[in-house]
Amino acid sequence: MAKQPRILILGTGLIGTSIGLALRALREPPEKIFGWDAHPEELAAARALGAIDEALTDRAAVLTPGLADIYVLATPVMPILDWMRQLAPVLTEAQLVTDVGSTKAVISAAAAELFNCSGRAHFLPGHPMAGKESGGAALAEPTLFRGAAWLFTPERGPAMMQPAQVPASEHSLETCWREMVAGFGATVLDLPAARHDELCAWVSHLPQMLSTALAALLQEAFADDPEGRAAVNVVGGRALRETTRLGSSPYSMWRDVALTNTEPIAFALQALEQKLAHLRENLRTPELRAEFHQANQFRVGESRKE
Amino acid sequence: MAKQPRILILGTGLIGTSIGLALRALREPPEKIFGWDAHPEELAAARALGAIDEALTDRAAVLTPGLADIYVLATPVMPILDWMRQLAPVLTEAQLVTDVGSTKAVISAAAAELFNCSGRAHFLPGHPMAGKESGGAALAEPTLFRGAAWLFTPERGPAMMQPAQVPASEHSLETCWREMVAGFGATVLDLPAARHDELCAWVSHLPQMLSTALAALLQEAFADDPEGRAAVNVVGGRALRETTRLGSSPYSMWRDVALTNTEPIAFALQALEQKLAHLRENLRTPELRAEFHQANQFRVGESRKE
Repeated sequence: MAKQPRILILGTGLIGTSIGLALRALREPPEKIFGWDAHPEELAAARALGAIDEALTDRAAVLTPGLADIYVLATPVMPILDWMRQLAPVLTEAQLVTDVGSTKAVISAAAAELFNCSGRAHFLPGHPMAGKESGGAALAEPTLFRGAAWLFTPERGPAMMQPAQVPASEHSLETCWREMVAGFGATVLDLPAARHDELCAWVSHLPQMLSTALAALLQEAFADDPEGRAAVNVVGGRALRETTRLGSSPYSMWRDVALTNTEPIAFALQALEQKLAHLRENLRTPELRAEFHQANQFRVGESRKE
Repeated sequence: MAKQPRILILGTGLIGTSIGLALRALREPPEKIFGWDAHPEELAAARALGAIDEALTDRAAVLTPGLADIYVLATPVMPILDWMRQLAPVLTEAQLVTDVGSTKAVISAAAAELFNCSGRAHFLPGHPMAGKESGGAALAEPTLFRGAAWLFTPERGPAMMQPAQVPASEHSLETCWREMVAGFGATVLDLPAARHDELCAWVSHLPQMLSTALAALLQEAFADDPEGRAAVNVVGGRALRETTRLGSSPYSMWRDVALTNTEPIAFALQALEQKLAHLRENLRTPELRAEFHQANQFRVGESRKE
């Protein structure tokens, strides 16, 4: 690229605004960052935080031909699909569209249909493994992606997960975006979309459903017992806080995840139900030891910034 | 009390050693702290950290008549019950025994049988709601109990949970121990033993079993898939770490919890299995919204030191 690209962030919630802030903090920031959000207050907050240079206040403005070089779709999955359909006819081969959606199979299929062919813009499906249990521009941080994985599921990507190659694409804007993401401090990895969705069902969607289930259950269990409810609040320690923290995550985002990754999530949930039943039936047998031993082996990366 | 009591801590792991350190940090520390542990290395570590003044290296020494004023049983539940049986015949009315066991109904029943009658020592069942996923004296901290609840289930306690009254007992050593625990920065509460066990099944034992189940499940799910296992480590974020953290908790402690609180834990586990199945069956229906909404209402105290 001769000059730095102009970037348009669609959806200036927690992730979109954090991307804007992280872009600003790069050694070579974009020439200009546009922002749009369905909620005027989120857009205003992103602007106030300096995550975007210019707020687009109506949808028609987003579709202005040639407005930006890179379009970052940072909404829940269903609005991403909607924007893909709207953007595909007005963009050109010289432009790149990427996204941060939590599931990738449906988005990758839409990309193959709507983009990545003659006369159409290039689409690179992506997913940063970062977030908080509460959304909104106000919680955005320029360092949100530091140490986190940022997954890409390019159409002709590797058969297995692997560290992304730079240049991974002949499309110069794709190379540019990958370099920017690496500049955020994220670990960039490429993998097939179906593999992504299966993996995320286990490491992200299952913990979310579990935390929602536990929080909803406790809320109900003490609904008619105010004294017990107060006691839960006093007696519950770190264990309870950590296992229920995701229970405050918003339905608006998770509805789309559940809709677009139903089978892998259902499979993981059923396996967990069976494991819990097995523990329950073995509370007084040596089998409990085998389960604790198995769990003791499990390790998940601890080297992240948090 | 004219002078400060002599205290004997039985079990100098994470909790016992933290108690020793917290006692040392009091404005009026005990006259002397003895320690005993089944594992010589734990006992040596507690001594090296300054949590105890004198290490008792054999079980017979623990039973020396008149050795200490307050005996703190800080082992898993089964060894607590064993020590109760051994101590009861050698102690006198002038001595206090208390414990930190995770379940209270079985211990309270043993206390009513073995202590708290003419000629026998006084027994105050207790449970600090503090800990870590890994045990051992090396992880002990004098501030471990600061901001945590410390529950007591005295035999003739209140019908409901309530802040403990000082003096809650006519036994001067009980008053002394309660004041020391308050001096650790813990919130002291009295409640019936059965209520304690039911409450802890929900707020402590269920999150533990859940975390063990999830960690064991993930360990198995990727047993034949090294590439996926590596990916879990890279891709898994804070959500996965927090929901599986307790999976590294030791079986030795939880076996006794499962054995002595089986029915309340089984009840809570079954309720969670049903809730997960309900989520699974409603991944594509509006019922998912109701569950997220219910979970969003749940709050657990956030004002703790950690």
